[in-house]
Amino acid sequence: MPPGLQRWFIAETIAIGSELLVGGRSDSNSLFIADRLGGNGIEVRFKSIVGDHRADIMTAIHTASRRAGVIVMTGGLGPTIDDCTREAVAEVTGRRLARRKAAFEGMVARLAQWGRTPNKGQLRQALIPSGAVVLPNPVGSAPGFALLWKRAIVIALPGVPREMEAMMEGTVIPFLTEQLGHVLTPRSHPIQRSVFHTWGLSEADVDTKLHGLITAGTPVDLGLLASPMGVLVSLTTKPHHAVGRTGLESLEQAVRSRLGEWIFAEGQDTMEAVVGRLLSKHTLTIALAESCTGGLIGHRLTQVPGSSAYVDRGAICYSDRAKTDMLGVPAELIARHGAVSREVAAAMARGIRERSGVSVGLSVTGIAGPGGATEAKPVGLVYVGLDDGVGEPLSKEFRFHGDRLTIKQRSSQAALDLLRRWLIERGNR
Amino acid sequence: MPPGLQRWFIAETIAIGSELLVGGRSDSNSLFIADRLGGNGIEVRFKSIVGDHRADIMTAIHTASRRAGVIVMTGGLGPTIDDCTREAVAEVTGRRLARRKAAFEGMVARLAQWGRTPNKGQLRQALIPSGAVVLPNPVGSAPGFALLWKRAIVIALPGVPREMEAMMEGTVIPFLTEQLGHVLTPRSHPIQRSVFHTWGLSEADVDTKLHGLITAGTPVDLGLLASPMGVLVSLTTKPHHAVGRTGLESLEQAVRSRLGEWIFAEGQDTMEAVVGRLLSKHTLTIALAESCTGGLIGHRLTQVPGSSAYVDRGAICYSDRAKTDMLGVPAELIARHGAVSREVAAAMARGIRERSGVSVGLSVTGIAGPGGATEAKPVGLVYVGLDDGVGEPLSKEFRFHGDRLTIKQRSSQAALDLLRRWLIERGNR
Repeated sequence: MPPGLQRWFIAETIAIGSELLVGGRSDSNSLFIADRLGGNGIEVRFKSIVGDHRADIMTAIHTASRRAGVIVMTGGLGPTIDDCTREAVAEVTGRRLARRKAAFEGMVARLAQWGRTPNKGQLRQALIPSGAVVLPNPVGSAPGFALLWKRAIVIALPGVPREMEAMMEGTVIPFLTEQLGHVLTPRSHPIQRSVFHTWGLSEADVDTKLHGLITAGTPVDLGLLASPMGVLVSLTTKPHHAVGRTGLESLEQAVRSRLGEWIFAEGQDTMEAVVGRLLSKHTLTIALAESCTGGLIGHRLTQVPGSSAYVDRGAICYSDRAKTDMLGVPAELIARHGAVSREVAAAMARGIRERSGVSVGLSVTGIAGPGGATEAKPVGLVYVGLDDGVGEPLSKEFRFHGDRLTIKQRSSQAALDLLRRWLIERGNR
Repeated sequence: MPPGLQRWFIAETIAIGSELLVGGRSDSNSLFIADRLGGNGIEVRFKSIVGDHRADIMTAIHTASRRAGVIVMTGGLGPTIDDCTREAVAEVTGRRLARRKAAFEGMVARLAQWGRTPNKGQLRQALIPSGAVVLPNPVGSAPGFALLWKRAIVIALPGVPREMEAMMEGTVIPFLTEQLGHVLTPRSHPIQRSVFHTWGLSEADVDTKLHGLITAGTPVDLGLLASPMGVLVSLTTKPHHAVGRTGLESLEQAVRSRLGEWIFAEGQDTMEAVVGRLLSKHTLTIALAESCTGGLIGHRLTQVPGSSAYVDRGAICYSDRAKTDMLGVPAELIARHGAVSREVAAAMARGIRERSGVSVGLSVTGIAGPGGATEAKPVGLVYVGLDDGVGEPLSKEFRFHGDRLTIKQRSSQAALDLLRRWLIERGNR
């Protein structure tokens, strides 16, 4: 590729907002932008975050223009005096700000839908640098704009995720395709990315299982990312390389065959959605008995739209008495083995299933810490139980590390994964 | 302040990792770093994020050195071949990488605690650029380092939050104080920041109530940040301005008196911790009856260590039958008013309190969407109930907007806030 054209394949995002610097909020817009640009062969190589200061925004635009051909700015287009992205772009590029008819009319029309007329601050939102293209905002009042400066395309979008996302899809990608299509199309290949979510293996285990997967010269990057919810495996094609759908598919197949059922979901899919589909497929219902997770498993399962079709109920049994009252776990079983024990986990799963009449009961009991540990039962000791009314309930021990939230998250993941594997096995019978 | 010294009051963070660019994880380390540096009068003005590419890391260090005196890098110090922060710093600053005794011995000692010996990758972690100070890692195996280059202090820390945080507190701040104390102390003022968390007011309402709070010339910035959990209000002193503890305190008092009980927590405090302290103070116990929140309230309350002292149990009643079975809500009450109604919310709160014998029962029923709405009952219609056994249960209607998660979050916040206000009022009686 001629070096002069390379810049059009490199993008930088600039997120603007003082709250992004000092707390309260972290920048998530840039992940969405990177995904959409990547799909069009443009790689986000740099991300910058600056506060609502005109001089700092100008510095950031200058820096970006030296290393990227596509610059996507988010934030600082609002109606308050803090919002100075318009002014910064105008000053750094030497353009004049003027009220633009298209921007003004779009904003007035949008506000009219809400029964309002523009106030003084909102009128500023119709100011656009001369020579810039107005990017209409189909969701909010602030329009965006795009201009060419120093051989970079500078795009300014609102910081509200819903508005930014609608404008990326509806306006920015078509605009870039129109402007850069003649450069991109003959030379670029969409950056493809496949993601696999695993549970139950350490990062080192996954690394070992995938050893030698990517042979030298294959233009695909393998990424591993450990979190309390498991290890994420990603395959990302390198920019400007023709891997092709089939090339990536054969690597995907290799990942699937090497990691097998340790993979619980792919792409944007989630554990709770996977489990929900399996329950629906087999027309099964579920009830939960949660102790240390405190309701987290219920919250996760009910994050899936339509989950009321298979989630019947849950009992959050934080006290011993609640385990006896709500689930019929015998008090002497708790006295003998302790509330955190294999036996109590089994009895909880059986109790909730029997009392609710669902197909399967799922339980968790454990010590989330930091207090509550004994010498025999350390923080992170967790038991998961599953009962389907056939034979004895399943019961499994785990020993997790981390803080209270981490242990709750890992416990919820372990319980849902036990359910997932049980559902798969049941389907295979 | 002499211009040459200004740079020591300006910091930039550089987060390194390809996963930070394309998804999977967003950079939260920089918020922690900004807070700790700000407390020492050093303002984080720029944040950069780059992938695991040596050339891009070098570009980022170059850029940062032009605009900041303190550069804090996180990530890229791990044992795998991807991790190239060490190499990038060495190359850009013209230093030689060599195994340093202090780094090696610290790492060996750390691994020995875990019963391991360093592998080949981990040995690379003892490579430190010449002239750099080794920053020991008290939590993990990878040491950090700091060096002076082009009148900037370049600090490299691991990307694992737990390790980075321990090193910021234990090593980096003392190191910066030692190096820059003579510059900072006579000229700087810690950047002070106060945060107030409100619930129940719109951003515009809060803005109106705080109108004119900050008079012209007061070196304090007022910030508002809306989220599903409410509106966050922040007061941040401008760098290099002597506001003083008393100056800020009078503004804090003004915020408190203008926003009153709409403020549910301050600083790092949370709704669930506030409610927990009030329950403990009055030796009260609580039980939950959750429908649309699916366990989220239970999860939040049990996030507080020691919450088992006051959280007795919760019933996640996702089906109508569960509301009858678990709480004794009459089936004909549900048939008459619908499961999402003021009457059912009240009956749920009373049912869980009576069956569990706790001091107070708290309930939520609503339509989280996207399905399940009728003409009379739209998505976002939510009822919260509270029963203390004295007179009729409280019951309150809310109409929320947003996606499923947002509506669940707002519902949980509304329920906990009703409880909080009831606890405060009870304490005042």
